[in-house]
Amino acid sequence: MFTIIGERINTTLGNIKKAVENKDIEYIREDVKKQTQCGATYIDVNAGARIGHEEEDMKWLLEIVQGATDLPLCLDSPDPQILETAYALVNKTPMINSISLEKDRFDSMIPFLKGKNCKIIALCMDDSGMPKTSEDIINRAKTIVGELENIGMKRDDIFVDPLIQPMSVDNNNGTMVMDAVKAIMQDLGGVHTTGGLSNISYGLPKRKIINRSFLLMMMANGFDSAIMDPLDKDIMAALKTGEMLAGHDNYCMNFLTSVRAGEIEA
Amino acid sequence: MFTIIGERINTTLGNIKKAVENKDIEYIREDVKKQTQCGATYIDVNAGARIGHEEEDMKWLLEIVQGATDLPLCLDSPDPQILETAYALVNKTPMINSISLEKDRFDSMIPFLKGKNCKIIALCMDDSGMPKTSEDIINRAKTIVGELENIGMKRDDIFVDPLIQPMSVDNNNGTMVMDAVKAIMQDLGGVHTTGGLSNISYGLPKRKIINRSFLLMMMANGFDSAIMDPLDKDIMAALKTGEMLAGHDNYCMNFLTSVRAGEIEA
Repeated sequence: MFTIIGERINTTLGNIKKAVENKDIEYIREDVKKQTQCGATYIDVNAGARIGHEEEDMKWLLEIVQGATDLPLCLDSPDPQILETAYALVNKTPMINSISLEKDRFDSMIPFLKGKNCKIIALCMDDSGMPKTSEDIINRAKTIVGELENIGMKRDDIFVDPLIQPMSVDNNNGTMVMDAVKAIMQDLGGVHTTGGLSNISYGLPKRKIINRSFLLMMMANGFDSAIMDPLDKDIMAALKTGEMLAGHDNYCMNFLTSVRAGEIEA
Repeated sequence: MFTIIGERINTTLGNIKKAVENKDIEYIREDVKKQTQCGATYIDVNAGARIGHEEEDMKWLLEIVQGATDLPLCLDSPDPQILETAYALVNKTPMINSISLEKDRFDSMIPFLKGKNCKIIALCMDDSGMPKTSEDIINRAKTIVGELENIGMKRDDIFVDPLIQPMSVDNNNGTMVMDAVKAIMQDLGGVHTTGGLSNISYGLPKRKIINRSFLLMMMANGFDSAIMDPLDKDIMAALKTGEMLAGHDNYCMNFLTSVRAGEIEA
């Protein structure tokens, strides 16, 4: 099943930052309820925007978000201390967003992850910067998955993020990541792949059609999770259609249910 | 570049049959002009529906269609005699639709094709029926491409049709053809792949979103032609977005031109 990481509770977004500043509980609750109704699998919570307030904001958000949904959370912070605090407060096994191969981040995240029960997003990033070829992505994926297995994590708990980069920067950024996802899903059987879809359309107009078209092309290569907005009806319709076409929807039952619910517009 | 075979001039469609019966020249002309404006690469012409009138109808259609467009035609008939007549009348190098591995069809089409200057659609069909696995499709593709090369045809002139079958019949019909296209484009370097997209959605509701989603997933596997309706704005927008994402649109110029022309709706 496709894992949808709902990306909306993030203080780098102006509306969420304002709701956190104003302690607007209802605003956060409503957003989380909508993401839940629309089919999110995890609710991402990022409290990093208000410098010096991350711990306080994370704690406040976790209480509100968990009061509004039964879904598990995706704890989104580069700081293991914030993650320790958050991990102690969650009701369900969380996803952690994220570890990378950058030395400082890697060295601080491994002790946090050791022995924890969680899912992990593993970014294909190292100290030399963003990947430049499919081989870069695949090699980094193999390295980081190996390291996580070394501390006892299971492949099914690992979500490799190949790092989706904008088409406006390089013509090959789409195929680079599609080819890498195909190879990762074959060579590292059992792992998942995820990523922030909207990066692909950065700097271009008509971003939504680009994002949902890319989602389908990624799904054709085995991509089985995305960090995305579950309130975007068009991308959710594309996702459900793509799941059916990828052979993950027996007798097209989920697709047909979605059509009857008015969720698929032709 | 993606090859769009415009499917609308087909007497099995009620409106076209009626126009042919009524010798409604303007109706045919308008349709062909619209397909041309919307970006068709070839105009398919099928005159097979009125039993006993195929040759007469084909000749009439060819005159009207070629008077309305400068595009090359795709001559769509199982009958080599009709194709000989049509071939003698076309102004530009045509595509022929189609040959297959069914013995009768194969044996009658090879003498027609020998020495001709044309493109050919090669169906992955043999006397045992429709393919049942990706391997069936790939093996048939290799056989028919080999046979066509034996009579001097170039790979660039061959459009392999893997035969898209409905999702409503089998859950794996999407992945079967996607995997086959990926292998054909790799193993038979230089050939093209094409097919009737709308077969995928037969028997399901909301067919247009299924068709255009499948087109994108096929393009992610190298599919570089389709028999489709160029007047369907949504599928044409998906196609242009997919071409950009597949790395076939330098600096996203065609995509941006289409956005400015109002052809891409987010």
